[in-house]
Amino acid sequence: MEEVDHLAHERNKAQFDVEAMKIVWAGSRHAFEVSDRMSRLVASDPAFRKDNRATLSRKELFKNTLRKAAYAWKRIVELRLSEEEASKLRFFVDEPAYTDLHWGMFIPAIKGQGTDEQHQKWLTLAYKMQIIGCYAQTELGHGSNVQGLETTATFDPKSDEFIIHSPTLTSSKWWPGGLGKVSTHAVVYARLIIDGRDHGVHGFIVQLRSLDDHLPLPGITIGDIGMKFGNGAYNTMDNGVLQFNHVRIPRNQMLMRVSQVTREGKYVQSDVPRQLVYGTMVYVRQTIVSDASCALSRAVCVAVRYSAVRRQFGSQDGGPETQVIDYKTQQSRLFPLLASAYAFRFVGEWLKWLYMDVTKRLQANEFSTLPEVHACTAGLKSLTTTATADGIEECRKLCGGHGYLCSSGLPELFAVYVPACTYEGDNTVLLLQVARFLMKTVSQLGSGKQLVGTTAYMQRAEHLMQCTSDVRSAEDWLKPSFILEAFEARALRLAVACAKNISKAPNPEEGFSQLSADLAEAAVAHCQLIVVSKFIDKIQGDIDGMGLKEQLQALCGIYALSLLHKHLGEFLSTGCITPKQAALANEKLRSLYAKVRPNAVALVDAFNYTDHFLGSILGRYDGNVYPKLYEEAWKDPLNDSVVPDGYHEYVRPLLKQQLRTAKL
Amino acid sequence: MEEVDHLAHERNKAQFDVEAMKIVWAGSRHAFEVSDRMSRLVASDPAFRKDNRATLSRKELFKNTLRKAAYAWKRIVELRLSEEEASKLRFFVDEPAYTDLHWGMFIPAIKGQGTDEQHQKWLTLAYKMQIIGCYAQTELGHGSNVQGLETTATFDPKSDEFIIHSPTLTSSKWWPGGLGKVSTHAVVYARLIIDGRDHGVHGFIVQLRSLDDHLPLPGITIGDIGMKFGNGAYNTMDNGVLQFNHVRIPRNQMLMRVSQVTREGKYVQSDVPRQLVYGTMVYVRQTIVSDASCALSRAVCVAVRYSAVRRQFGSQDGGPETQVIDYKTQQSRLFPLLASAYAFRFVGEWLKWLYMDVTKRLQANEFSTLPEVHACTAGLKSLTTTATADGIEECRKLCGGHGYLCSSGLPELFAVYVPACTYEGDNTVLLLQVARFLMKTVSQLGSGKQLVGTTAYMQRAEHLMQCTSDVRSAEDWLKPSFILEAFEARALRLAVACAKNISKAPNPEEGFSQLSADLAEAAVAHCQLIVVSKFIDKIQGDIDGMGLKEQLQALCGIYALSLLHKHLGEFLSTGCITPKQAALANEKLRSLYAKVRPNAVALVDAFNYTDHFLGSILGRYDGNVYPKLYEEAWKDPLNDSVVPDGYHEYVRPLLKQQLRTAKL
Ligand SMILES: Cc1cc2nc3c(=O)[nH]c(=O)nc-3n(C[C@H](O)[C@H](O)[C@H](O)COP(=O)(O)OP(=O)(O)OC[C@H]3O[C@@H](n4cnc5c(N)ncnc54)[C@H](O)[C@@H]3O)c2cc1C
Ligand SMILES: Cc1cc2nc3c(=O)[nH]c(=O)nc-3n(C[C@H](O)[C@H](O)[C@H](O)COP(=O)(O)OP(=O)(O)OC[C@H]3O[C@@H](n4cnc5c(N)ncnc54)[C@H](O)[C@@H]3O)c2cc1C
Ligand SMILES: [Ca+2]
Repeated sequence: MEEVDHLAHERNKAQFDVEAMKIVWAGSRHAFEVSDRMSRLVASDPAFRKDNRATLSRKELFKNTLRKAAYAWKRIVELRLSEEEASKLRFFVDEPAYTDLHWGMFIPAIKGQGTDEQHQKWLTLAYKMQIIGCYAQTELGHGSNVQGLETTATFDPKSDEFIIHSPTLTSSKWWPGGLGKVSTHAVVYARLIIDGRDHGVHGFIVQLRSLDDHLPLPGITIGDIGMKFGNGAYNTMDNGVLQFNHVRIPRNQMLMRVSQVTREGKYVQSDVPRQLVYGTMVYVRQTIVSDASCALSRAVCVAVRYSAVRRQFGSQDGGPETQVIDYKTQQSRLFPLLASAYAFRFVGEWLKWLYMDVTKRLQANEFSTLPEVHACTAGLKSLTTTATADGIEECRKLCGGHGYLCSSGLPELFAVYVPACTYEGDNTVLLLQVARFLMKTVSQLGSGKQLVGTTAYMQRAEHLMQCTSDVRSAEDWLKPSFILEAFEARALRLAVACAKNISKAPNPEEGFSQLSADLAEAAVAHCQLIVVSKFIDKIQGDIDGMGLKEQLQALCGIYALSLLHKHLGEFLSTGCITPKQAALANEKLRSLYAKVRPNAVALVDAFNYTDHFLGSILGRYDGNVYPKLYEEAWKDPLNDSVVPDGYHEYVRPLLKQQLRTAKL
Repeated sequence: MEEVDHLAHERNKAQFDVEAMKIVWAGSRHAFEVSDRMSRLVASDPAFRKDNRATLSRKELFKNTLRKAAYAWKRIVELRLSEEEASKLRFFVDEPAYTDLHWGMFIPAIKGQGTDEQHQKWLTLAYKMQIIGCYAQTELGHGSNVQGLETTATFDPKSDEFIIHSPTLTSSKWWPGGLGKVSTHAVVYARLIIDGRDHGVHGFIVQLRSLDDHLPLPGITIGDIGMKFGNGAYNTMDNGVLQFNHVRIPRNQMLMRVSQVTREGKYVQSDVPRQLVYGTMVYVRQTIVSDASCALSRAVCVAVRYSAVRRQFGSQDGGPETQVIDYKTQQSRLFPLLASAYAFRFVGEWLKWLYMDVTKRLQANEFSTLPEVHACTAGLKSLTTTATADGIEECRKLCGGHGYLCSSGLPELFAVYVPACTYEGDNTVLLLQVARFLMKTVSQLGSGKQLVGTTAYMQRAEHLMQCTSDVRSAEDWLKPSFILEAFEARALRLAVACAKNISKAPNPEEGFSQLSADLAEAAVAHCQLIVVSKFIDKIQGDIDGMGLKEQLQALCGIYALSLLHKHLGEFLSTGCITPKQAALANEKLRSLYAKVRPNAVALVDAFNYTDHFLGSILGRYDGNVYPKLYEEAWKDPLNDSVVPDGYHEYVRPLLKQQLRTAKL
């Protein structure tokens, strides 16, 4: 593909079949094939260029995104792409746009909460993009606390309409993506008021802009909420503000799958169970976990390749210096992130299965697994997004000074990724939800209630509360059973300790609140266990291809043991392992780093990312970093002229001591 | 000052004298007074406006910075500001500019490495800004490894000149701030070559641009290296690339305080000790520690105030919701950062003293403390900048979605701050230097060598290696002696364990390299001990003012105990404390959070930051967040028109299904 390959010597070292690993990473040959095709389609089309993003003004940036979104849709239609292909194509375009919310939130909300007639009407339009929709939930004053939203939807029995209204400044919708400048419609969440009675928050389909001239409809004020973190990053998105002044919509635009308002203004529940709504949430969060593995693997790919290119110190007799990837500190920061990328990939894959499973159960009116599934997805969303955001920034630092340049791709990747820690549930708030579920589960221990899914391990509470680890050698730490037992015991003991401490408080609510920092840690321990155990499941299953299993075992070990090291206090204070065993774990970890080292570049090649998608000079496939960095620098607008704009007004008078009379 | 004060109820709760704390924070009444005056001077002058930074193009942004720098200099001259005042004024202008490098690196380099005649000539020009200088050390291929720089300075005895040359692409100077577009001169680091012999890297004063027309001099190629992390952030700085094609400078432009080249081309050492050079390094790193406390306190100020304004969940009977600062998870994330800001402030103050002390000693030809001082400043630079970068981002997350807006000030603060982890020594590389010093110190234990300064505790190795903590109650954890003993024992035991493991390796270098991840942790433990012990020194000294001591004690406890919690594995595995004592520490920590809570807003008011300096709507002194956020949003250029640029070309054809014929 490339002419020179500065990383060829690294690729030759690999001890496994990279092509086979690409399939494992993608999930299936089919998934690989679709991703591969779509990513090349995007990369080879100059219309999808993105290397100029950092220097565009907000308006140029935004306009360019509108162009790309339209062009992508045109291609999707022309090529008759399947839904799967289209979504991959949008993914590889790699630029937040209103289409993300249209396809990712607006349509799923209608699907999940709308009636069949509503599907018929609105989804038909939406699928063809004859309308563009966004998801307008958050307000200036309320995000996490959805039940506290202030926008009202008051039923007017005279006209058979709802009156949508923003009674306060803080009730202004604030943040919805695609709202600010593009969406024609929105699913608006508002308090349903009938006859003066407040029935809580419900969803309504509201047309925002005229389909003729795009002007906001009467009574509607909309704008963009301004610049966000980073240069390009999320600024390609028109997160918006929206106020309603008594805007009327027909009654049938309330999403009525679960609850309905009749012509007479009666509020009734349909026979569709409310729990169905959770299905959407599980779906959305599962995509977030899968996005986490993409974002993290992308950063890791850049950092691994550049760490193999970059040499610093350690030259002997004028020979080449040491590749920084050979420094043990570099490895101990980088390889756990490489392992996490794989771990999140596999747990994301499992979540996809879980979503299908729960959907089937819901359709069969079986709700028993729902709380567990809900806690599990909430927790994994929190865990993987936090680790990914931190991991991207660590990868940036691992690239030294050059990682601070936009041309490294990493600053913008961080800036565009990091809101994932906040949207779809603030990560701390989510951990507390998991903790609540854990406390409930712990309180039922011994009651004979069957524990399922990711809580099944708690069934063995008696053993896990008192067991001591039998690890005797560094080698033992490779055995899944030892790892699992340590993680299970730690998670359970932390949860049980919290429950005990809560029971000492005047009342459970007060106790929960006082101990919430500890509870969040217990929730993290539970979630880490899930990721570890799904990674172990993966390597215990069928994996074809030369050397793949060995590599994945090493990565799984690195993932688990680096967590053990990081959270050592918890493992030791709960008596799950001894200091001696911890030292053995560290020893094993070092040997696993050495094992992964010669395979590192091949392990990131397995992500199969194009240079276009990576968008990073440091992460180029061919490792030809320095000439390209140099070339790129000259493209900055500041280099348009040798003497900068402002020299004559502001620099020369200063040098010549003539500031007194200068106009500044 | 302000008309409404939404935070008045918080301020009324404070249990200490805020005005007195302002003095303690500033370091002295004089320092407070200067800072206060300069910050108001900047804040009240519309020429220093900075709220529009996020939407300017690179060129506009840069030009505006040139204007501000010139205007600041004009004011400095007009008002005959002292050096101290001038430097504060530049600080509060709060925009990276070429002047930072001119005053902060170019002048100190000449001061530290130049002869008296060189001072006479160059400093005179530089102090008046008749020349503008930068610090050109780093190259495309070498940053951390300064000894590996490739630029050459070859002595030509015929003409009595040095020929400065860039022999390779990777020898291009890359990163120097102020270089790209502004500097007329640079201190250039290059390999000194005499008669074919390489004498290693030395500094040279090189004129880069004509003082007449600002064009690069013959043989010199200069440009800007392009966009960096963030919007405004560090993009106001012209970090540059520079290549020399056999550029000649007179012999007397080599910085010759320590080594000289004679007219005959002889390389001679002056009688000035080489160690003097370290003085500059200590000076620069001390300012970085003090900047860390500024940046962190600024982020904490925003997050504390906004957490007191923001309410979410927990409304009872329609009353107001809970202030998010009352959630224990919020406190456990936020208050350790508040405590760290104070801790870094005090350790920075102490470093200032240390710098003066070492300078005096150097002048008296006393070098014995130098290795310890060097390790200590390197370590503290690494520790405080890492914690500050992470802390700023945590503060941003603590503000939920709104923290992601540039108008919160936090994204840009992070982007502009974070390179401090990389420049002036990559933080990992620095920790390894500290570790090397620690290993040397450990190897001398028992040799009778007197240990001084921050290593004095190792003198008590025998006790610290086997002591067990006597903590019996949560209350005990407030006693400085218990805290110190635990931190000393942990630091020493980690260092000794590393030394033992190194000694098992085939050779010390190999051992050091294999264990370097553990060594970096040992270095962190040593540095945390320094910060803790300086905080304790501070509260054990004189502190006037109602309630101040109580607050600082609480913060000191929070700083130490939150570290103990975070690194619990190290305290437990080395047997410094027991799990039971760890639980008591956690209990104490919770009660300290409760103690600080009513004082939190006052504790950030004590930083005395103006709203201009904070640059954050969420952190406004008056807490009037929502109306101002709303107002600010409309200023985005995207809101110039209701229908966005690009609608007619890219949105309408899509909605109308007319993409096939659209030009995209
Ligand atoms: C880039 C981006 C895109 C978005 N897109 C959309 C969109 O398309 N549509 C939409 O409707 N919204 C959107 N949002 C809004 C997003 O969903 C909210 O920001 C998110 O739900 C967090 O809520 P918040 O901002 O109110 O945070 P807050 O709840 O105000 O959080 C502030 C702090 O309080 C803490 N906290 C809050 N409650 C508790 C509690 N009970 N216990 C302990 N701690 C607590 C949090 O942990 C956090 O530290 C978007 C946001 C962003 C940043
Ligand atoms: C905003 C900014 C401003 C700057 N301003 C200036 C300026 O004015 N003048 C100037 O001369 N320079 C400047 N620099 C350059 C800066 O000093 C260097 O970037 C810095 O010294 C780090 O070196 P590096 O980039 O070569 O990192 P590298 O050394 O390449 O680091 C890459 C990775 O390798 C690791 N590594 C390297 N060596 C070792 C080792 N021996 N052991 C273990 N790990 C190792 C590092 O930890 C890091 O993870 C600036 C940089 C930035 C980002
Ligand atoms: Ca004792």
